[in-house]
Amino acid sequence: MKVVVDAFGGDNAPLEIVEGAVMALNKHKDLEIILCGKEKEIKKILGNRTERIEIVNAEDVITNDDQPTEAIRHKKDSSLVKAYDVLKERDDVIGLVSAGSTGAVLVGAIMKIGRIKGISRPALAPILPTKKNSDVIIIDSGANIDCKPINLLHFALMGSAYYSIIYKKDAPRVALLNNGTEEEKGNELAKETYPLLKNAPINFIGNKEGRDFMSGDVDVMVTDGFAGNALLKGTEGAVGAVLSILKHSIKSHFMSKIGYLFMRKTFKEIRNRIDILSKHGGSPLLGCKKLVVKNHGSCKRNNILSSIEQTIILHENHLNQKIEEAIEKLNLVS
Amino acid sequence: MKVVVDAFGGDNAPLEIVEGAVMALNKHKDLEIILCGKEKEIKKILGNRTERIEIVNAEDVITNDDQPTEAIRHKKDSSLVKAYDVLKERDDVIGLVSAGSTGAVLVGAIMKIGRIKGISRPALAPILPTKKNSDVIIIDSGANIDCKPINLLHFALMGSAYYSIIYKKDAPRVALLNNGTEEEKGNELAKETYPLLKNAPINFIGNKEGRDFMSGDVDVMVTDGFAGNALLKGTEGAVGAVLSILKHSIKSHFMSKIGYLFMRKTFKEIRNRIDILSKHGGSPLLGCKKLVVKNHGSCKRNNILSSIEQTIILHENHLNQKIEEAIEKLNLVS
Repeated sequence: MKVVVDAFGGDNAPLEIVEGAVMALNKHKDLEIILCGKEKEIKKILGNRTERIEIVNAEDVITNDDQPTEAIRHKKDSSLVKAYDVLKERDDVIGLVSAGSTGAVLVGAIMKIGRIKGISRPALAPILPTKKNSDVIIIDSGANIDCKPINLLHFALMGSAYYSIIYKKDAPRVALLNNGTEEEKGNELAKETYPLLKNAPINFIGNKEGRDFMSGDVDVMVTDGFAGNALLKGTEGAVGAVLSILKHSIKSHFMSKIGYLFMRKTFKEIRNRIDILSKHGGSPLLGCKKLVVKNHGSCKRNNILSSIEQTIILHENHLNQKIEEAIEKLNLVS
Repeated sequence: MKVVVDAFGGDNAPLEIVEGAVMALNKHKDLEIILCGKEKEIKKILGNRTERIEIVNAEDVITNDDQPTEAIRHKKDSSLVKAYDVLKERDDVIGLVSAGSTGAVLVGAIMKIGRIKGISRPALAPILPTKKNSDVIIIDSGANIDCKPINLLHFALMGSAYYSIIYKKDAPRVALLNNGTEEEKGNELAKETYPLLKNAPINFIGNKEGRDFMSGDVDVMVTDGFAGNALLKGTEGAVGAVLSILKHSIKSHFMSKIGYLFMRKTFKEIRNRIDILSKHGGSPLLGCKKLVVKNHGSCKRNNILSSIEQTIILHENHLNQKIEEAIEKLNLVS
């Protein structure tokens, strides 16, 4: 099984990316990795750890400052474009992992790989923890800023299929993000989307508010990329704010400092539980013909490991076939 | 100075509402309060504390189950409608405080009191803490679900005027909620709003993401009521989730329990700092001809106190005149 990795995408590339790939190879003996990027630098990091690794040289890098479409079109020797070429041209490569520019990863997926028949908008579905020890995904989290009801219907189907695979849960609870729980609530988009979700082959539990996001009562939160981005980033910001206020207060009291010594383990647990970014590898781009997993730009080696493992799991559990079947069920094939 | 209070709005009415009004009267010797609601029950709570209190009897109550417009039209003997009648008919009454149904408070304000000339959409602007010991307001937080760019421009002007009064801060930093900081980012609404804010007589600092909301780098976050509600409620939910995970982890470790004894003060501080609801009285409904402050349904007496005090401060600092002036500056008077 082969996965192609953009070794030069992300703030901590290439070191953390390459080391993450090596971690995955050590855990999965049937796995082969294709690393795209500056061969010399990659080889320096790898040393003699070359088993089941292929390097595709790419001297250029796409940055967040590049205009995504321009970059995918013209930076043909960039690590990301080379990685997409590999994913497109080789049937035995099951997926791509990149921590590079979100925009470029999106545009590359659509231009180079293409969408699943019937899906007009691929979507990002990151995972967050809840207070009930379960996880929740939000789809879309920012790939599609202006959406139509049909897009949200597709997000619901894709998110449901994705969640049921990674958490081995039949009929995950799908909710529509809204400003109230009553059926008639919402902006025009939400109002028009509600009946579509109600009649879709999913476990639709109705409208939920932002405050329900981390409650553990929702598995798949469906919304447009603008509101989704506000909710996701707002949640990240709030978690960070609480922890920083906590830290500041502890520092400011002598007794608290003593208390902290007793609570170290607890705080470590909390950080692990709450740390949204390191929770999972990254977010798959759902709706593309081949698997693409986008990592956060600041990700570390263990995130790359999880992303590669996620790619394997989604492949082995036929995510894309399940999405295609759901779309066909709806007779929405365009 | 007279303020009218809806004594039967909210989950803890009438006791907490009436007690809050009494607290305000004890603190402000030139204040008079008009309480609307069931006279017998109010009198029972007040006992002999009748100084500077007038009771306007109202036997009916508007609940969250009532359709707002219907309720304002037909529940003429409800505590909220009576309160609005008092606010409308008496020139010496400077404002209204209610913890009742948000929808009914909104509809009542528009139907009974009317909007400031040039403002098409009054907006709610609740206050949240940031990690830098400053506060941030979000406007609109849910009163206007589908918005036009002109509405967001008005929100920015009103929010800026409001913030500068309550925090005695000239030129508060106004940001547009967006899915990225670059000028060209956003959905159609954000893209069309950006140039309006750029040219408005405010301290516009550009686009900010949800994660910047509690960073302390923004004073006034401007957005439509749908995204604003998602961000506000998502933040509340995330804060709650972190604290509950914290509590759970502490309980599950003996050493942590000991540590907790040393940290009690710190946790109390954090709860006070983070508790969004009790932070301030409530949210003023900006853009109405007279001051209306909406409390959270679950508010307690000290929230009612703050809301009454907020009404006084906003009146003494001529909030509405400042909003009118800002609108006139824009030559946007319709």
